[in-house]
Amino acid sequence: MADSNGLDTKSRFLQIYGRLKSELLEDPAFDFTDDARQWIDRMLDYNVPGGKLNRGISVVDSYKLLREGIQLSDDEFFLASSLGWCIEWLQAYFLVLDDIMDNSHTRRGQPCWFRVPKVGIIAANDGILLRNHIPQILKRHFREKPYYVDLLDLFNEVEFQTASGQMLDLITTHEGEQDLSKYNLSVYRRIVQYKTAYYSFYLPVACALLMSGENLDYFVDVKNILVEMGTYFQVQDDFLDCFGDPEVIGKIGTDIEDYKCSWLIVQALERANDNQMKTLSENYGKSDPACVAKVKSIYNELNLQAVFSEYEATSYKQLISSIEAQPSKAVQEVLKSFLHKIYKRQK
Amino acid sequence: MADSNGLDTKSRFLQIYGRLKSELLEDPAFDFTDDARQWIDRMLDYNVPGGKLNRGISVVDSYKLLREGIQLSDDEFFLASSLGWCIEWLQAYFLVLDDIMDNSHTRRGQPCWFRVPKVGIIAANDGILLRNHIPQILKRHFREKPYYVDLLDLFNEVEFQTASGQMLDLITTHEGEQDLSKYNLSVYRRIVQYKTAYYSFYLPVACALLMSGENLDYFVDVKNILVEMGTYFQVQDDFLDCFGDPEVIGKIGTDIEDYKCSWLIVQALERANDNQMKTLSENYGKSDPACVAKVKSIYNELNLQAVFSEYEATSYKQLISSIEAQPSKAVQEVLKSFLHKIYKRQK
Repeated sequence: MADSNGLDTKSRFLQIYGRLKSELLEDPAFDFTDDARQWIDRMLDYNVPGGKLNRGISVVDSYKLLREGIQLSDDEFFLASSLGWCIEWLQAYFLVLDDIMDNSHTRRGQPCWFRVPKVGIIAANDGILLRNHIPQILKRHFREKPYYVDLLDLFNEVEFQTASGQMLDLITTHEGEQDLSKYNLSVYRRIVQYKTAYYSFYLPVACALLMSGENLDYFVDVKNILVEMGTYFQVQDDFLDCFGDPEVIGKIGTDIEDYKCSWLIVQALERANDNQMKTLSENYGKSDPACVAKVKSIYNELNLQAVFSEYEATSYKQLISSIEAQPSKAVQEVLKSFLHKIYKRQK
Repeated sequence: MADSNGLDTKSRFLQIYGRLKSELLEDPAFDFTDDARQWIDRMLDYNVPGGKLNRGISVVDSYKLLREGIQLSDDEFFLASSLGWCIEWLQAYFLVLDDIMDNSHTRRGQPCWFRVPKVGIIAANDGILLRNHIPQILKRHFREKPYYVDLLDLFNEVEFQTASGQMLDLITTHEGEQDLSKYNLSVYRRIVQYKTAYYSFYLPVACALLMSGENLDYFVDVKNILVEMGTYFQVQDDFLDCFGDPEVIGKIGTDIEDYKCSWLIVQALERANDNQMKTLSENYGKSDPACVAKVKSIYNELNLQAVFSEYEATSYKQLISSIEAQPSKAVQEVLKSFLHKIYKRQK
């Protein structure tokens, strides 16, 4: 949707990345060397702007909806976008470090940053720097706003929740020998909520609410709805990893091979008889395609596609009814716009 | 020095660690599992309280001096100690991650956290958690203080400087092939200032100043003096690594073997003739004791012990004269107490 400048939101949003990056690199308070500046420049370009930018742009979209039709000034667009970019910076920080911890190979279609020649384990500190850029950006542009301290608290709270979710994931699903008995729905939900839902769903809306002058203490319901939506989003992700079309989702799922605590295995474990349980135990987490096929055949025997459709319909109904219980129409619009972006998505 | 409760400052300070830890573990806002709680408990005990605690305790000492003899209430002692512990938490976070990046083996006389069985690369996320505990502690105990936002800004600023110093160190001294021509005094000073001086020297005093109701914008000179003192401290460290008594300093220095950008090699490079330069190039950064001995003999030929004594005397004089130019007697006392803790130290 083009605006008066002839640019759509995404293009304007992307331009603002360039400005934020320059401000960080040119900060007179910091006596960087040219080598250091070049390193950071390249590191930012490699890790920050290359994703889908959904989280970042949704700050702008949400803020527009909260303004109920009043056009944003250039300054307001810039501020909302800056908060959006802070979320993208946060995401980059998590991804750079998660890839090291998971020993991953590729990310967004290119080698993980720590696998780039001459980077290696310096990537861990680069992750830390990405994290540290967020308060730099906030201080430069929001220090005089009445909601500045709330922004700092919000980013701190959400980062803590995400890091705690990563810890739950690491100590439950990565630690020691493979043991499917550790996987169940409450373990699954806890990891997803903390590791993904807060920063991906709650944080963008909370940023937009703060910019609109709202007190987040009064939006606990909104938080719960968004965390629920984030959980639903991750369930879809897990479903598509196995049942989605690789041509459409753009990658070949490997959750079964990777022994992931996926929604599908959790559902299967709840429904399997002794025989099926034995097959799952013997084949889950093996890279042999024959093993993967056996796990998938159990998923089919247990009709997990139908279980998912049922879950999707129920979730949607519950979410809509919680959303419609919200007193503010504008807030309802924000939440519905999120929900309709993800409902029945195929990728 | 025992107080009215019969406990010295260090014992009281250590008790407060237990309270802060319990508050983090029992936080009702966080739905931890027992496994997660045990993990964090053990991780904190392993990494946070085992150092010398100089940085943390110096917040309490500095705050006492700024109060000019008025005895601290229990609550004031607790708050100053909490800020001190935030610095210890920050230090733990840096050390856990630095040890991973440097592939170190031991820390404070025990294996580095990432080398503990079943920890491994989970240590990277534990480092992140340590960092995230700081705003949790600050929010719980300082949210209503008028200087709360300044505390958040301060910790963010100092963390950013430290991470930037670590980056300068990593890209200058760890990257690629060994090349002594990259080492010089300005490179050295920049790394030391950012990586060590801000968080070790400036941060404790800045915390005490904020608790005393001061505006840090008016203490730029104090910051510069403390950063200078931090640099002096690191120069001593580098000197003692080579010329200190291993019995006294408690470890055998390996800066020469490790190709460190040490103050000594920087001084040697400034003074060496072509022959000596060749010997340094051929022998610096080798673990063979014969190579180390050759480097040390150049250090002796160049009289670096005398160069150090000269540097120490000059630094001391300059620091004292800057300190005495400070308008506040209490601030002078704080700075002098720091300086006298480190001047002519042998360990």
